[in-house]
Amino acid sequence: MGSYHPSWRGVTFHDVVPAGVMTARAFLEACLERIAAREGVVRALVARIPDEEARRLADESDRRRAAGRPLSPIDGMPIGIKDLIETADMPTQMGCRAYEGNWPRRDSAMVQALKAAGAIILAKTVTTELGMSEPGPTTNPWDPARTPGGSSSGSAAAVAAGFVPVAIGTQVLGSIIRPAAFCGNWALKPSQGAINRGERQATSQSTAGPHANCAEDAWLVAREISRRVGGDPGTPGLLGPLSPPAPLRPMRLGVLRTEAWPRIDAKSQELFTRYVRSLPVEVIWPEDHPLLARLEEAVGEAMAVGNMITAFENRPGFLNLPREKLSRRLLARLDASLAWDQQDYMVALARRAAMRAAHAAAAQVCDAILAPACPGPAPLWDPKAPDADANPRPTGDPAANAATSALGCPAFTLPVLAVDGLPMGVQVIGLPQQDAQVVAIGRWLYAAAPHLAV
Amino acid sequence: MGSYHPSWRGVTFHDVVPAGVMTARAFLEACLERIAAREGVVRALVARIPDEEARRLADESDRRRAAGRPLSPIDGMPIGIKDLIETADMPTQMGCRAYEGNWPRRDSAMVQALKAAGAIILAKTVTTELGMSEPGPTTNPWDPARTPGGSSSGSAAAVAAGFVPVAIGTQVLGSIIRPAAFCGNWALKPSQGAINRGERQATSQSTAGPHANCAEDAWLVAREISRRVGGDPGTPGLLGPLSPPAPLRPMRLGVLRTEAWPRIDAKSQELFTRYVRSLPVEVIWPEDHPLLARLEEAVGEAMAVGNMITAFENRPGFLNLPREKLSRRLLARLDASLAWDQQDYMVALARRAAMRAAHAAAAQVCDAILAPACPGPAPLWDPKAPDADANPRPTGDPAANAATSALGCPAFTLPVLAVDGLPMGVQVIGLPQQDAQVVAIGRWLYAAAPHLAV
Repeated sequence: MGSYHPSWRGVTFHDVVPAGVMTARAFLEACLERIAAREGVVRALVARIPDEEARRLADESDRRRAAGRPLSPIDGMPIGIKDLIETADMPTQMGCRAYEGNWPRRDSAMVQALKAAGAIILAKTVTTELGMSEPGPTTNPWDPARTPGGSSSGSAAAVAAGFVPVAIGTQVLGSIIRPAAFCGNWALKPSQGAINRGERQATSQSTAGPHANCAEDAWLVAREISRRVGGDPGTPGLLGPLSPPAPLRPMRLGVLRTEAWPRIDAKSQELFTRYVRSLPVEVIWPEDHPLLARLEEAVGEAMAVGNMITAFENRPGFLNLPREKLSRRLLARLDASLAWDQQDYMVALARRAAMRAAHAAAAQVCDAILAPACPGPAPLWDPKAPDADANPRPTGDPAANAATSALGCPAFTLPVLAVDGLPMGVQVIGLPQQDAQVVAIGRWLYAAAPHLAV
Repeated sequence: MGSYHPSWRGVTFHDVVPAGVMTARAFLEACLERIAAREGVVRALVARIPDEEARRLADESDRRRAAGRPLSPIDGMPIGIKDLIETADMPTQMGCRAYEGNWPRRDSAMVQALKAAGAIILAKTVTTELGMSEPGPTTNPWDPARTPGGSSSGSAAAVAAGFVPVAIGTQVLGSIIRPAAFCGNWALKPSQGAINRGERQATSQSTAGPHANCAEDAWLVAREISRRVGGDPGTPGLLGPLSPPAPLRPMRLGVLRTEAWPRIDAKSQELFTRYVRSLPVEVIWPEDHPLLARLEEAVGEAMAVGNMITAFENRPGFLNLPREKLSRRLLARLDASLAWDQQDYMVALARRAAMRAAHAAAAQVCDAILAPACPGPAPLWDPKAPDADANPRPTGDPAANAATSALGCPAFTLPVLAVDGLPMGVQVIGLPQQDAQVVAIGRWLYAAAPHLAV
């Protein structure tokens, strides 16, 4: 049993260091102390730069800020990077035995941008195997018997535990928003490609995005990346103001239950419903408007379609890896994809395009859409039997997140609910390129509506 | 002075091996003989698999075909792969000192597909440095004092010299079509992303495509790739029949002169004009229709916009390379890009989008568009001074090709012209996803219209 309550406020940077309350060095020292105290149980970090190097970078940042010349609002911010993303100063091992010792001495585009903004790339965070379901060792900071979620397990846990104020995760199905919701974080899964994925362009619905303990830190990190290196090739990158979007009251919100609904326990279902009913704004449910009902129906196959598209796209890369270094779970997915050809893939793309058309239509009748960010609180898991067929989803079920991944649209999760002392998130969903709007509406919801615990 | 005449027919595979005229082994032996005879001067190949391994693969292919079970129409075809693309059996050194000895033991998606189709990945072909302008050692098979074009220098020369019937090139500005046109090849620069670029997804207007000595070989290779691994993530991949599209008479063709026109010598200008006037089909020029004039105007900045977009997209990757291992030419481009931010890039994308809108409009009034494929015949170059400021484009000028690269549309070059005993190509241009149509119209043109030499 955890001890989380949605009145909890985690470690934030924007209101402390740029505000002059604390130096970047003092902020870093506090992070290092929390790591020393809790990493033995949380196990969120797979590699770190030397403490002395981090201190040197923090001191440099303090000198810039003291001279009135910070490189950006996030100058001096310690950041964790999911271990799928290349960093010159630390290995990139992807939670996969095939990448043991892999250290290409390159900084991914987003890491280059963060360094140019003065951020301190402090650690690599644990990922499940290749960002898929085989779990790493990370535990949920609110209850070590539970998963932090995946595949951005370490990023979610590191932020919740205060090891870093922001960590970058990635999502192809449910891997940013689900772990954030399980850990009580804020997190932004941006529009498809809005944060430059650098060398990781193999899949068409994967995104990179920040976990944080407040909307401001999440936004500033995402925006400081995009202003420097843009988004994926051919896309504009994350759009919106350089400072955090101010809270915005929507005129009307919609609700999606998502594929996860039948799998959510009654207590969590009831809590989410009560939260929506408590909102001081007009809300429409799928049963209230046929365009929302149509969208709910269309995204009902988001898990199946997203899994098929991603497996086909990943196939050439995975076929280059030695089979003996892959888990049974991953091999089963790979082998299932071997029979697929271009036509199967085109059909899956067409089904995904239909979901996007349904979203565009539904967005005409509401300013944003709310949905549960996870299927109830983080489940218990048994780290001694990670590969057991008895536990097909050891980091939890991405069913609440597959829709926004397939839609290529922004999703922003708010830590506003708790069930049995564990966090549960609510996500705000907009059309592609409406990242700033979902953050603005999310900030308004966080401030204007009650946070609920059962 | 070369000795090329557009009645020339190079080495083809489809009408020999699948037709039973020759075994794959005998075909391979003839390729190996031509390599032994001419590679010392042509210098198209940077790595090869052992001859005995190639022979073993050819014999296996012959056994499959004898048993009536070829893996595809290209089973047993020797193929060259541009040295930017990863191959498990050979290093991938990218014509760049920063990649000397680079051998990641991976097959790019297209290479996996070709092997699955039974093709023999015989050699890696010379590329200019990182696919940009610093030339490799390759000479033009029609005149060793001239460039074969770039950046797919080795692929173009290897096909013209009969070392392989097909070689894969890549184009981000002019790197498939220009060298093909300089060497007398057929070549297809497909719709953006229509051939899966595997690990090479960093730039939004680069494509991979085949050089060949006939339309059939080019089409079969491209299509056998796409049916197995599709196109880039999120795109349908090359569409059209599995067998080569039959010749198709268009109702009306348009003409673009492209940015290259003012730089083309008078003799070549006049030859291209005479070719167009000789066609047994209605042709409209920019001065005949305002939609074509509008397109000509819009693509007048294709070089500038394409260079800017590509330099911004390449910047994070290039910044990871050691500067001392890059040429002055490449460093100058990299350094010019350092000041650009997301907003500059978005403006360039908007300018490119305007070109694409102009193309869509012009395509309403003609079935395809013809343009010179190169600015006259291949220029002389001095391999002893490759980095000289005096020679800014040692592999020739991509001005005739920048438009189709920016448009993301298919371009298919035909070897139908000769100037002073050197090849000059004419390209057929369609809308994105009309790859089969441009090949079909190209085949009709090749058969129905005279080939001209001056």
